Amino acid sequence: MTTITMAIAELEARIRRIFTNCGVRAETAGAVARVIAAGERDNCKSHGIYRVEGCLRVLKAGKVAPDAIPEVRSGEGPIIRVDAGGGYASPAYEAARPTLIERARRQGLAALVINDCVHFSALWYEVEDLAGEGLAVLSMCPSHAAMAPSGGRAPLLGTNPFAFGWPRPGKDPYVFDFATTLVARGEIELHEREGKALPEGWAVGPDGQPTTDPSAALAGAMLPFGQHKGSAIATMIELLAGAMLGDFMSQEAREFMEGTRLLPRHGALILAFDPSAFSQGRDRDPLADGERLLQGIADQGARLPSQRRYAARRIARAEGIRLSTEEVALLDRLEAQGLGAVRC
Amino acid sequence: MTTITMAIAELEARIRRIFTNCGVRAETAGAVARVIAAGERDNCKSHGIYRVEGCLRVLKAGKVAPDAIPEVRSGEGPIIRVDAGGGYASPAYEAARPTLIERARRQGLAALVINDCVHFSALWYEVEDLAGEGLAVLSMCPSHAAMAPSGGRAPLLGTNPFAFGWPRPGKDPYVFDFATTLVARGEIELHEREGKALPEGWAVGPDGQPTTDPSAALAGAMLPFGQHKGSAIATMIELLAGAMLGDFMSQEAREFMEGTRLLPRHGALILAFDPSAFSQGRDRDPLADGERLLQGIADQGARLPSQRRYAARRIARAEGIRLSTEEVALLDRLEAQGLGAVRC
Repeated sequence: MTTITMAIAELEARIRRIFTNCGVRAETAGAVARVIAAGERDNCKSHGIYRVEGCLRVLKAGKVAPDAIPEVRSGEGPIIRVDAGGGYASPAYEAARPTLIERARRQGLAALVINDCVHFSALWYEVEDLAGEGLAVLSMCPSHAAMAPSGGRAPLLGTNPFAFGWPRPGKDPYVFDFATTLVARGEIELHEREGKALPEGWAVGPDGQPTTDPSAALAGAMLPFGQHKGSAIATMIELLAGAMLGDFMSQEAREFMEGTRLLPRHGALILAFDPSAFSQGRDRDPLADGERLLQGIADQGARLPSQRRYAARRIARAEGIRLSTEEVALLDRLEAQGLGAVRC
Repeated sequence: MTTITMAIAELEARIRRIFTNCGVRAETAGAVARVIAAGERDNCKSHGIYRVEGCLRVLKAGKVAPDAIPEVRSGEGPIIRVDAGGGYASPAYEAARPTLIERARRQGLAALVINDCVHFSALWYEVEDLAGEGLAVLSMCPSHAAMAPSGGRAPLLGTNPFAFGWPRPGKDPYVFDFATTLVARGEIELHEREGKALPEGWAVGPDGQPTTDPSAALAGAMLPFGQHKGSAIATMIELLAGAMLGDFMSQEAREFMEGTRLLPRHGALILAFDPSAFSQGRDRDPLADGERLLQGIADQGARLPSQRRYAARRIARAEGIRLSTEEVALLDRLEAQGLGAVRC
């Protein structure tokens, strides 16, 4: 495969231009470009350049507001709200970020509620960002209904990502971010393309019965990781980051977007904890104790999450991001032709 | 099996007497008895009468303070602390409970940090209690190091329970509470007694290699549910409910108790959310939306968690709790002979 090397900043600038060319507000285009370029930088292909067209597709369908200005509403308590106004999620996060950090440091605990956003980014981006500020972070959101509950027969829950970050002074933070499905939808699509049967436990077909046929699985529903335990966590995410925020759960997100072809619209919940506040009055250093655990995990030869991303990032920073000619051609096309080049 | 039926209140009173006879402070004995009787009432045998002797064993070993008076320290912010003083966890929770509820209602979000407690109860008890007050609740704590991280070779993480509650007006709350191990240690012990091989993926032996031999598994380490995802959640619990609280993680809990024979001592974290505060300004009813989801799960024929407990409770309330003659004999013995009857 022929590859072209592009600096991270150049990729980010190109993505930003693509969005502003399509009539997206400059600050929004900047926030979206930062997240997508970071995904590609980390070789997280599902959230890299691939997402540009997905974000534009929802714009072309008239289902995202390109000119929405996020509105932060914050009293004195631990809950901070930002109304994304039907725009993309990332600018809403950026708008509320300083308040969230300040509040978490001052009160020890704070929650950010994002409402009415079109969600396209991996959760690790924000989780890692806040962990870099010395905070522990929990983040979750619904998605499109695409998964049956454990023991169930039809799509009801989303792939509902769950992410966590923990600060590591002088090191990349401890960050995990995973879907509550057993596997990503892309994995099932790969089996379909290759004509391979699925392992047991991945999915049910449209008839609600367990299936190993990838086409039946794609027409049916995925199943949760960890059986009833993963199912319970996905349900918790619907409740905490959907119902509790007065926002869509995954079923309604899917109805709003008339299927799963477009990005989902819903809310998101981020909890930020200041370890120094939680350990106040205790004669221990939470971050040093955390290091002991994480070192213990690595010493057993077990992999800490996100290490592949961090390794890819180091290479991208030193050498630029390697893109295929097809990826660069897509960027060229989107930059020149705008929404006209977006495949629906 | 001959059974004896006992009213819930009678069982609770008997357990209370057993503890006060052993020199445990009356308020503490009351709190401990309430939790254990509730476990037995719900036919949750691992946290029922079985726990009485476990709680007394740690007392006989001099590793729990029978006269500790929990000290609640609460400023104005969302974090409430209770120092259990090396006593049992339950009286510490009871002491801090009113402040936690008041704070969560007033500020929308509050965290309870319990430090220095000997932990013996299932998390569902407190989670259900707070959900009954209209709050959403997340609860977690470390345990004894008994589980290897995914891809690891030796005990480092605890069985680290994770629990969640959501209020359902007019119904029993939605509550889940599970260990982050794939199976309970008792399951492995059962296979050993029956001379049956374990399924793959349950455990590693003392050599760090995967094993299907239950004896090797018991001498080695259990493995997490959901592979790397469950492992990540167990790690998160060590960090958030151990390191962050300036308290023991599972490794240190095990060292303090010189193995896993005695109950662990560590901290615990409870997060309480007021759905009406989180959804403020939104034109939706979070609890009604939650009902729609939970009904949707049930309508698919999928089981909601805790339903077996609630069913057992209804029977116990109507007919009393059925105990075996052995269980009643144990209660008789403990009541008459105190710590002298406790097997170490």
